[in-house]
Amino acid sequence: MARIFLAGAGPGDPDLLTLKTARLLSRAQVVLHDSLVGPEILALINPEAEIVDVGKRCGQASTAQAEICRLLVEAAGTGRLVVRLKGGDPAIFGRLTEEMEALRAAGFAFEVVPGVTAASAAAAALETSLTQRRTARSLHVITGHGAEDGLPAHDWAALARAGGTLAIYMGSKHLPGLVGRLLDAGLPPELPAVAVEAASLPGERVIRANLAQLPASLVRAAPSGPVLLLVGVALA
Amino acid sequence: MARIFLAGAGPGDPDLLTLKTARLLSRAQVVLHDSLVGPEILALINPEAEIVDVGKRCGQASTAQAEICRLLVEAAGTGRLVVRLKGGDPAIFGRLTEEMEALRAAGFAFEVVPGVTAASAAAAALETSLTQRRTARSLHVITGHGAEDGLPAHDWAALARAGGTLAIYMGSKHLPGLVGRLLDAGLPPELPAVAVEAASLPGERVIRANLAQLPASLVRAAPSGPVLLLVGVALA
Repeated sequence: MARIFLAGAGPGDPDLLTLKTARLLSRAQVVLHDSLVGPEILALINPEAEIVDVGKRCGQASTAQAEICRLLVEAAGTGRLVVRLKGGDPAIFGRLTEEMEALRAAGFAFEVVPGVTAASAAAAALETSLTQRRTARSLHVITGHGAEDGLPAHDWAALARAGGTLAIYMGSKHLPGLVGRLLDAGLPPELPAVAVEAASLPGERVIRANLAQLPASLVRAAPSGPVLLLVGVALA
Repeated sequence: MARIFLAGAGPGDPDLLTLKTARLLSRAQVVLHDSLVGPEILALINPEAEIVDVGKRCGQASTAQAEICRLLVEAAGTGRLVVRLKGGDPAIFGRLTEEMEALRAAGFAFEVVPGVTAASAAAAALETSLTQRRTARSLHVITGHGAEDGLPAHDWAALARAGGTLAIYMGSKHLPGLVGRLLDAGLPPELPAVAVEAASLPGERVIRANLAQLPASLVRAAPSGPVLLLVGVALA
Protein backbone atom coordinates (compact mmCIF):
# COMPACT_ATOMS: atom_id res chain seq x y z
CA MET A 1 0.00 0.00 0.00
CA ALA A 2 1.33 3.37 -1.02
CA ARG A 3 2.59 5.67 1.69
CA ILE A 4 3.29 8.50 -0.72
CA PHE A 5 0.50 10.37 -2.45
CA LEU A 6 0.77 13.01 -5.15
CA ALA A 7 -2.62 14.60 -4.71
CA GLY A 8 -4.60 17.40 -6.31
CA ALA A 9 -5.91 20.09 -3.97
CA GLY A 10 -8.41 21.34 -6.54
CA PRO A 11 -8.98 25.01 -7.38
CA GLY A 12 -8.86 26.44 -3.86
CA ASP A 13 -12.22 26.01 -2.13
CA PRO A 14 -11.62 23.32 0.52
CA ASP A 15 -15.10 22.02 -0.28
CA LEU A 16 -13.76 21.04 -3.70
CA LEU A 17 -11.17 18.68 -2.27
CA THR A 18 -11.99 15.08 -3.06
CA LEU A 19 -13.04 12.86 -0.16
CA LYS A 20 -9.83 10.94 -0.72
CA THR A 21 -7.48 13.89 -0.56
CA ALA A 22 -9.31 15.33 2.45
CA ARG A 23 -8.93 12.01 4.28
CA LEU A 24 -5.26 11.74 3.30
CA LEU A 25 -4.63 15.23 4.67
CA SER A 26 -6.32 14.35 7.95
CA ARG A 27 -3.98 11.36 8.35
CA ALA A 28 -0.79 12.66 6.73
CA GLN A 29 2.43 12.80 8.70
CA VAL A 30 4.21 15.02 6.19
CA VAL A 31 2.58 17.41 3.72
CA LEU A 32 4.62 19.19 1.06
CA HIS A 33 2.43 21.80 -0.56
CA ASP A 34 2.60 24.52 -3.21
CA SER A 35 2.28 28.15 -2.17
CA LEU A 36 -1.02 28.34 -4.02
CA VAL A 37 -2.66 25.97 -1.54
CA GLY A 38 -4.49 28.24 0.88
CA PRO A 39 -4.87 28.35 4.66
CA GLU A 40 -8.39 26.85 4.68
CA ILE A 41 -7.09 23.69 3.07
CA LEU A 42 -3.99 23.61 5.25
CA ALA A 43 -6.30 23.78 8.28
CA LEU A 44 -7.62 20.32 7.34
CA ILE A 45 -4.21 18.70 7.76
CA ASN A 46 -3.53 16.39 10.68
CA PRO A 47 -2.36 18.82 13.42
CA GLU A 48 0.57 16.57 14.20
CA ALA A 49 1.85 16.55 10.62
CA GLU A 50 4.96 18.32 9.45
CA ILE A 51 3.86 20.91 6.87
CA VAL A 52 6.33 22.24 4.33
CA ASP A 53 5.50 25.06 1.93
CA VAL A 54 7.83 23.99 -0.85
CA GLY A 55 6.92 27.08 -2.88
CA LYS A 56 8.12 29.36 -0.12
CA ARG A 57 11.08 27.26 0.84
CA CYS A 58 12.29 26.82 -2.71
CA GLY A 59 11.63 30.25 -4.17
CA GLN A 60 9.81 30.73 -7.43
CA ALA A 61 12.54 29.95 -9.94
CA SER A 62 11.95 26.88 -12.05
CA THR A 63 15.27 25.46 -10.87
CA ALA A 64 13.60 25.00 -7.49
CA GLN A 65 11.87 21.91 -8.86
CA ALA A 66 15.01 19.87 -8.16
CA GLU A 67 14.88 20.94 -4.52
CA ILE A 68 11.19 19.96 -4.28
CA CYS A 69 12.06 16.53 -5.66
CA ARG A 70 14.85 16.21 -3.12
CA LEU A 71 12.54 17.11 -0.23
CA LEU A 72 9.92 14.66 -1.50
CA VAL A 73 12.35 11.78 -1.73
CA GLU A 74 13.73 12.66 1.70
CA ALA A 75 10.22 12.61 3.19
CA ALA A 76 9.45 9.33 1.44
CA GLY A 77 12.55 7.81 2.99
CA THR A 78 11.23 8.39 6.51
CA GLY A 79 8.46 5.81 5.97
CA ARG A 80 5.85 8.30 7.13
CA LEU A 81 2.58 8.95 5.31
CA VAL A 82 3.54 11.67 2.82
CA VAL A 83 1.15 13.83 0.83
CA ARG A 84 2.55 16.02 -1.91
CA LEU A 85 -0.30 18.48 -2.35
CA LYS A 86 -0.55 20.32 -5.66
CA GLY A 87 -3.00 22.98 -6.76
CA GLY A 88 -5.70 21.77 -9.17
CA ASP A 89 -5.14 18.39 -10.80
CA PRO A 90 -1.57 17.09 -10.57
CA ALA A 91 -1.58 15.81 -14.17
CA ILE A 92 -2.40 19.21 -15.71
CA PHE A 93 0.55 21.62 -15.51
CA GLY A 94 1.49 20.20 -12.12
CA ARG A 95 5.11 19.20 -12.74
CA LEU A 96 4.03 15.71 -11.85
CA THR A 97 6.52 14.00 -14.16
CA GLU A 98 9.60 15.39 -12.45
CA GLU A 99 8.41 14.28 -9.01
CA MET A 100 7.30 10.82 -10.12
CA GLU A 101 10.65 10.29 -11.81
CA ALA A 102 12.49 11.29 -8.65
CA LEU A 103 10.42 8.87 -6.56
CA ARG A 104 10.86 6.05 -9.08
CA ALA A 105 14.60 6.64 -9.27
CA ALA A 106 14.76 6.37 -5.48
CA GLY A 107 12.67 3.20 -5.50
CA PHE A 108 9.50 4.50 -3.83
CA ALA A 109 6.00 3.45 -4.85
CA PHE A 110 3.38 6.18 -4.88
CA GLU A 111 -0.18 6.90 -5.87
CA VAL A 112 -1.55 9.83 -7.86
CA VAL A 113 -4.86 11.27 -6.66
CA PRO A 114 -6.62 13.45 -9.23
CA GLY A 115 -8.23 16.78 -8.42
CA VAL A 116 -10.59 19.33 -9.89
CA THR A 117 -8.67 21.42 -12.40
CA ALA A 118 -8.94 25.22 -12.58
CA ALA A 119 -10.81 25.27 -15.90
CA SER A 120 -13.66 23.24 -14.38
CA ALA A 121 -13.89 25.59 -11.41
CA ALA A 122 -13.86 28.64 -13.67
CA ALA A 123 -16.64 27.14 -15.80
CA ALA A 124 -18.72 26.48 -12.69
CA ALA A 125 -18.18 30.06 -11.53
CA LEU A 126 -19.31 31.34 -14.93
CA GLU A 127 -22.22 28.90 -15.14
CA THR A 128 -20.92 28.02 -18.58
CA SER A 129 -20.13 24.72 -20.19
CA LEU A 130 -16.64 24.55 -21.66
CA THR A 131 -18.00 22.39 -24.46
CA GLN A 132 -21.15 23.09 -26.43
CA ARG A 133 -22.93 20.53 -28.47
CA ARG A 134 -22.68 22.16 -31.88
CA THR A 135 -20.41 25.14 -31.46
CA ALA A 136 -17.56 24.04 -29.16
CA ARG A 137 -16.79 20.36 -29.52
CA SER A 138 -13.34 20.58 -27.98
CA LEU A 139 -11.41 22.11 -25.11
CA HIS A 140 -7.78 23.13 -25.54
CA VAL A 141 -5.83 23.57 -22.35
CA ILE A 142 -2.53 25.36 -22.80
CA THR A 143 0.08 26.97 -20.63
CA GLY A 144 0.63 30.68 -21.10
CA HIS A 145 4.12 30.42 -19.73
CA GLY A 146 7.13 29.18 -21.66
CA ALA A 147 9.93 27.09 -20.25
CA GLU A 148 12.34 30.01 -20.36
CA ASP A 149 9.90 32.51 -18.87
CA GLY A 150 8.84 33.81 -22.27
CA LEU A 151 5.88 33.03 -24.49
CA PRO A 152 5.29 29.30 -24.88
CA ALA A 153 6.05 27.67 -28.24
CA HIS A 154 2.55 26.64 -29.25
CA ASP A 155 1.43 26.18 -32.84
CA TRP A 156 -0.81 29.23 -32.71
CA ALA A 157 -2.26 28.69 -36.17
CA ALA A 158 -3.33 25.19 -35.18
CA LEU A 159 -4.86 26.44 -31.93
CA ALA A 160 -6.78 29.12 -33.83
CA ARG A 161 -8.05 26.59 -36.38
CA ALA A 162 -8.92 23.90 -33.84
CA GLY A 163 -11.99 25.81 -32.69
CA GLY A 164 -13.67 24.95 -29.44
CA THR A 165 -12.76 26.56 -26.15
CA LEU A 166 -9.26 27.65 -25.23
CA ALA A 167 -8.27 27.54 -21.56
CA ILE A 168 -4.99 29.25 -20.73
CA TYR A 169 -3.27 28.42 -17.44
CA MET A 170 -0.64 30.75 -16.02
CA GLY A 171 -1.35 33.22 -18.79
CA SER A 172 -1.78 36.57 -17.08
CA LYS A 173 1.88 37.58 -17.15
CA HIS A 174 2.23 37.19 -20.90
CA LEU A 175 -1.36 37.98 -21.83
CA PRO A 176 -0.65 40.75 -24.36
CA GLY A 177 1.79 38.49 -26.19
CA LEU A 178 -0.58 35.52 -26.05
CA VAL A 179 -3.48 37.54 -27.42
CA GLY A 180 -1.24 38.98 -30.12
CA ARG A 181 -0.28 35.51 -31.31
CA LEU A 182 -3.89 34.32 -31.28
CA LEU A 183 -5.07 37.37 -33.26
CA ASP A 184 -2.20 36.99 -35.73
CA ALA A 185 -3.19 33.36 -36.10
CA GLY A 186 -6.65 34.36 -37.18
CA LEU A 187 -8.90 34.33 -34.13
CA PRO A 188 -11.41 37.19 -34.36
CA PRO A 189 -10.81 40.16 -32.01
CA GLU A 190 -14.47 40.05 -30.92
CA LEU A 191 -14.28 36.42 -29.76
CA PRO A 192 -15.62 36.23 -26.19
CA ALA A 193 -12.81 36.03 -23.62
CA VAL A 194 -13.02 35.83 -19.85
CA ALA A 195 -10.50 35.94 -17.04
CA VAL A 196 -11.48 34.24 -13.81
CA GLU A 197 -9.41 35.22 -10.81
CA ALA A 198 -9.25 32.92 -7.79
CA ALA A 199 -11.98 30.60 -9.10
CA SER A 200 -13.94 28.97 -6.24
CA LEU A 201 -12.32 31.18 -3.56
CA PRO A 202 -13.90 34.09 -1.65
CA GLY A 203 -11.87 36.54 -3.75
CA GLU A 204 -13.24 35.11 -7.00
CA ARG A 205 -13.69 37.72 -9.73
CA VAL A 206 -14.88 37.44 -13.31
CA ILE A 207 -13.51 39.81 -15.93
CA ARG A 208 -15.49 39.61 -19.18
CA ALA A 209 -14.19 41.07 -22.40
CA ASN A 210 -13.45 40.03 -25.94
CA LEU A 211 -10.14 38.63 -27.09
CA ALA A 212 -8.70 41.96 -28.24
CA GLN A 213 -9.73 43.80 -25.11
CA LEU A 214 -8.91 41.15 -22.52
CA PRO A 215 -5.34 42.37 -21.79
CA ALA A 216 -6.50 45.93 -21.06
CA SER A 217 -9.42 44.66 -18.99
CA LEU A 218 -7.12 42.48 -16.96
CA VAL A 219 -4.69 45.33 -16.33
CA ARG A 220 -7.57 47.47 -15.04
CA ALA A 221 -8.76 44.64 -12.80
CA ALA A 222 -5.24 44.24 -11.35
CA PRO A 223 -5.77 40.68 -10.10
CA SER A 224 -3.76 39.48 -7.14
CA GLY A 225 -4.85 35.81 -7.24
CA PRO A 226 -4.27 33.11 -9.84
CA VAL A 227 -6.00 33.80 -13.16
CA LEU A 228 -7.51 31.32 -15.60
CA LEU A 229 -8.26 32.62 -19.09
CA LEU A 230 -11.01 31.24 -21.29
CA VAL A 231 -11.54 32.14 -24.95
CA GLY A 232 -14.21 30.98 -27.37
CA VAL A 233 -17.82 31.14 -28.47
CA ALA A 234 -18.84 29.02 -25.47
CA LEU A 235 -18.12 32.07 -23.29
CA ALA A 236 -20.69 34.25 -25.08
CA MET B 1 -29.28 30.29 -1.59
CA ALA B 2 -29.49 27.83 -4.44
CA ARG B 3 -31.70 24.80 -3.99
CA ILE B 4 -30.70 23.29 -7.32
CA PHE B 5 -27.22 21.97 -7.94
CA LEU B 6 -25.74 20.71 -11.19
CA ALA B 7 -22.91 18.69 -9.75
CA GLY B 8 -20.08 16.56 -11.06
CA ALA B 9 -19.84 13.02 -9.72
CA GLY B 10 -16.25 12.63 -10.87
CA PRO B 11 -14.90 9.58 -12.71
CA GLY B 12 -16.64 6.87 -10.69
CA ASP B 13 -14.74 6.16 -7.48
CA PRO B 14 -16.94 7.59 -4.70
CA ASP B 15 -13.74 8.65 -2.97
CA LEU B 16 -13.22 11.10 -5.84
CA LEU B 17 -16.42 12.98 -5.15
CA THR B 18 -15.76 16.46 -3.85
CA LEU B 19 -16.64 17.16 -0.23
CA LYS B 20 -19.30 19.52 -1.52
CA THR B 21 -21.02 17.05 -3.81
CA ALA B 22 -20.87 14.30 -1.18
CA ARG B 23 -22.51 16.62 1.33
CA LEU B 24 -25.16 17.70 -1.18
CA LEU B 25 -26.00 14.07 -1.89
CA SER B 26 -26.36 13.33 1.81
CA ARG B 27 -28.90 16.16 2.10
CA ALA B 28 -30.62 16.01 -1.28
CA GLN B 29 -34.35 15.48 -1.52
CA VAL B 30 -34.29 14.70 -5.24
CA VAL B 31 -31.34 13.33 -7.23
CA LEU B 32 -31.48 13.06 -11.01
CA HIS B 33 -28.47 11.08 -12.16
CA ASP B 34 -26.93 9.71 -15.33
CA SER B 35 -26.77 5.96 -15.86
CA LEU B 36 -22.98 6.16 -15.63
CA VAL B 37 -23.16 7.11 -11.95
CA GLY B 38 -22.58 3.85 -10.10
CA PRO B 39 -24.19 2.17 -7.10
CA GLU B 40 -21.40 3.10 -4.67
CA ILE B 41 -22.06 6.77 -5.26
CA LEU B 42 -25.82 6.32 -5.18
CA ALA B 43 -25.40 4.66 -1.79
CA LEU B 44 -24.22 8.02 -0.41
CA ILE B 45 -27.52 9.72 -1.21
CA ASN B 46 -29.89 10.70 1.60
CA PRO B 47 -32.01 7.53 2.08
CA GLU B 48 -35.16 9.62 2.05
CA ALA B 49 -34.41 11.24 -1.30
CA GLU B 50 -36.23 10.48 -4.50
CA ILE B 51 -33.65 9.06 -6.92
CA VAL B 52 -34.27 9.18 -10.66
CA ASP B 53 -31.98 7.49 -13.19
CA VAL B 54 -32.64 9.86 -16.05
CA GLY B 55 -30.46 7.76 -18.36
CA LYS B 56 -32.63 4.72 -17.82
CA ARG B 57 -35.89 6.61 -17.77
CA CYS B 58 -35.13 8.58 -20.90
CA GLY B 59 -33.42 5.98 -23.05
CA GLN B 60 -30.10 6.62 -24.73
CA ALA B 61 -31.17 8.68 -27.73
CA SER B 62 -29.95 12.25 -27.77
CA THR B 63 -33.56 13.46 -28.05
CA ALA B 64 -33.96 12.32 -24.46
CA GLN B 65 -32.16 15.48 -23.34
CA ALA B 66 -35.42 17.42 -23.61
CA GLU B 67 -37.06 14.96 -21.24
CA ILE B 68 -34.18 15.30 -18.75
CA CYS B 69 -34.61 19.08 -18.85
CA ARG B 70 -38.34 18.68 -18.25
CA LEU B 71 -37.76 16.41 -15.25
CA LEU B 72 -35.18 18.82 -13.85
CA VAL B 73 -37.47 21.83 -14.11
CA GLU B 74 -40.30 19.81 -12.60
CA ALA B 75 -38.11 18.81 -9.64
CA ALA B 76 -36.94 22.42 -9.23
CA GLY B 77 -40.57 23.53 -9.05
CA THR B 78 -41.19 21.43 -5.95
CA GLY B 79 -38.89 23.63 -3.88
CA ARG B 80 -36.97 20.59 -2.65
CA LEU B 81 -33.17 20.35 -2.59
CA VAL B 82 -32.37 19.03 -6.06
CA VAL B 83 -29.06 17.58 -7.20
CA ARG B 84 -28.57 16.88 -10.89
CA LEU B 85 -25.63 14.48 -10.73
CA LYS B 86 -23.49 14.14 -13.85
CA GLY B 87 -20.51 11.89 -14.49
CA GLY B 88 -17.12 13.63 -14.43
CA ASP B 89 -17.17 17.42 -14.58
CA PRO B 90 -20.47 18.94 -15.72
CA ALA B 91 -18.74 21.56 -17.91
CA ILE B 92 -16.85 19.00 -20.02
CA PHE B 93 -19.15 17.09 -22.37
CA GLY B 94 -21.89 17.10 -19.74
CA ARG B 95 -24.75 18.71 -21.67
CA LEU B 96 -24.71 21.37 -19.01
CA THR B 97 -25.82 24.15 -21.35
CA GLU B 98 -29.17 22.58 -22.22
CA GLU B 99 -30.06 22.03 -18.57
CA MET B 100 -28.96 25.49 -17.42
CA GLU B 101 -30.99 27.06 -20.21
CA ALA B 102 -34.07 25.09 -19.19
CA LEU B 103 -33.68 26.19 -15.57
CA ARG B 104 -33.09 29.82 -16.54
CA ALA B 105 -36.09 29.82 -18.85
CA ALA B 106 -38.21 28.54 -15.97
CA GLY B 107 -36.82 31.17 -13.62
CA PHE B 108 -34.84 28.93 -11.27
CA ALA B 109 -31.48 29.88 -9.77
CA PHE B 110 -28.92 27.10 -9.56
CA GLU B 111 -25.30 26.41 -8.75
CA VAL B 112 -22.76 24.41 -10.74
CA VAL B 113 -20.40 22.23 -8.70
CA PRO B 114 -17.32 21.09 -10.61
CA GLY B 115 -15.97 17.54 -10.52
CA VAL B 116 -12.89 15.55 -11.45
CA THR B 117 -12.97 14.90 -15.18
CA ALA B 118 -12.20 11.50 -16.72
CA ALA B 119 -8.90 12.58 -18.27
CA SER B 120 -7.52 13.47 -14.83
CA ALA B 121 -8.57 10.09 -13.43
CA ALA B 122 -7.06 8.26 -16.40
CA ALA B 123 -3.79 10.15 -15.94
CA ALA B 124 -3.72 9.23 -12.26
CA ALA B 125 -4.33 5.57 -13.13
CA LEU B 126 -1.48 5.67 -15.62
CA GLU B 127 0.81 7.61 -13.28
CA THR B 128 1.38 9.96 -16.19
CA SER B 129 1.16 13.71 -16.47
CA LEU B 130 -1.06 14.88 -19.31
CA THR B 131 1.28 17.80 -19.83
CA GLN B 132 5.05 17.59 -19.97
CA ARG B 133 7.30 20.51 -19.54
CA ARG B 134 9.06 20.46 -22.90
CA THR B 135 7.27 17.86 -24.98
CA ALA B 136 3.53 18.28 -24.27
CA ARG B 137 2.63 21.85 -23.44
CA SER B 138 -1.06 21.45 -24.16
CA LEU B 139 -3.99 19.12 -23.62
CA HIS B 140 -6.73 18.81 -26.23
CA VAL B 141 -9.98 17.34 -25.02
CA ILE B 142 -12.34 16.31 -27.79
CA THR B 143 -15.47 14.28 -28.17
CA GLY B 144 -15.24 11.18 -30.32
CA HIS B 145 -18.94 11.28 -30.99
CA GLY B 146 -20.65 13.55 -33.49
CA ALA B 147 -24.01 15.18 -33.02
CA GLU B 148 -25.63 12.87 -35.56
CA ASP B 149 -24.03 9.73 -34.19
CA GLY B 150 -21.22 9.82 -36.73
CA LEU B 151 -17.65 11.06 -36.55
CA PRO B 152 -17.40 14.52 -35.01
CA ALA B 153 -16.50 17.45 -37.26
CA HIS B 154 -13.15 18.39 -35.79
CA ASP B 155 -10.39 20.13 -37.74
CA TRP B 156 -8.20 17.04 -37.71
CA ALA B 157 -5.24 18.76 -39.34
CA ALA B 158 -5.26 21.41 -36.61
CA LEU B 159 -5.49 18.77 -33.90
CA ALA B 160 -2.58 16.89 -35.42
CA ARG B 161 -0.49 20.05 -35.66
CA ALA B 162 -1.37 21.35 -32.21
CA GLY B 163 0.89 18.80 -30.52
CA GLY B 164 0.51 18.03 -26.86
CA THR B 165 -1.78 15.34 -25.51
CA LEU B 166 -5.09 14.41 -27.08
CA ALA B 167 -7.85 13.14 -24.78
CA ILE B 168 -10.85 11.64 -26.55
CA TYR B 169 -14.10 11.26 -24.61
CA MET B 170 -16.80 8.88 -25.85
CA GLY B 171 -14.45 7.70 -28.57
CA SER B 172 -14.57 3.92 -28.43
CA LYS B 173 -17.52 3.46 -30.79
CA HIS B 174 -15.92 5.39 -33.65
CA LEU B 175 -12.30 4.63 -32.80
CA PRO B 176 -11.26 3.23 -36.21
CA GLY B 177 -12.65 6.32 -37.92
CA LEU B 178 -11.07 8.67 -35.39
CA VAL B 179 -7.67 7.04 -35.75
CA GLY B 180 -8.00 7.10 -39.52
CA ARG B 181 -8.61 10.86 -39.49
CA LEU B 182 -5.71 11.48 -37.13
CA LEU B 183 -3.32 9.39 -39.24
CA ASP B 184 -4.53 11.08 -42.43
CA ALA B 185 -3.94 14.40 -40.72
CA GLY B 186 -0.31 13.51 -40.14
CA LEU B 187 0.00 12.03 -36.68
CA PRO B 188 2.59 9.24 -36.72
CA PRO B 189 1.23 5.66 -36.46
CA GLU B 190 3.75 4.88 -33.72
CA LEU B 191 2.56 7.72 -31.47
CA PRO B 192 1.82 6.27 -28.00
CA ALA B 193 -1.91 5.74 -27.44
CA VAL B 194 -3.71 4.37 -24.41
CA ALA B 195 -7.28 3.43 -23.64
CA VAL B 196 -8.33 3.53 -20.01
CA GLU B 197 -11.52 1.68 -19.21
CA ALA B 198 -13.50 2.57 -16.09
CA ALA B 199 -10.78 4.85 -14.71
CA SER B 200 -10.79 4.92 -10.89
CA LEU B 201 -13.28 2.03 -10.61
CA PRO B 202 -12.59 -1.56 -9.52
CA GLY B 203 -12.93 -2.68 -13.17
CA GLU B 204 -10.25 -0.24 -14.32
CA ARG B 205 -8.15 -1.54 -17.21
CA VAL B 206 -5.33 0.02 -19.17
CA ILE B 207 -4.85 -0.91 -22.82
CA ARG B 208 -1.53 0.37 -24.16
CA ALA B 209 -0.77 0.53 -27.86
CA ASN B 210 0.30 2.99 -30.48
CA LEU B 211 -2.08 5.12 -32.49
CA ALA B 212 -2.31 2.75 -35.47
CA GLN B 213 -2.81 -0.32 -33.31
CA LEU B 214 -5.18 1.12 -30.72
CA PRO B 215 -8.42 0.15 -32.52
CA ALA B 216 -7.40 -3.51 -32.80
CA SER B 217 -6.14 -3.55 -29.22
CA LEU B 218 -9.42 -2.12 -27.99
CA VAL B 219 -11.45 -4.67 -29.94
CA ARG B 220 -9.42 -7.47 -28.35
CA ALA B 221 -9.91 -5.97 -24.89
CA ALA B 222 -13.69 -5.77 -25.45
CA PRO B 223 -14.33 -3.12 -22.79
CA SER B 224 -17.71 -2.98 -21.11
CA GLY B 225 -17.18 0.25 -19.12
CA PRO B 226 -16.62 3.82 -20.29
CA VAL B 227 -13.37 4.34 -22.17
CA LEU B 228 -11.11 7.37 -22.23
CA LEU B 229 -8.54 7.53 -24.99
CA LEU B 230 -5.22 9.36 -24.66
CA VAL B 231 -2.78 9.96 -27.50
CA GLY B 232 0.60 11.68 -27.49
CA VAL B 233 4.24 11.54 -26.50
CA ALA B 234 3.31 12.11 -22.85
CA LEU B 235 1.93 8.55 -22.84
CA ALA B 236 5.29 6.99 -23.74
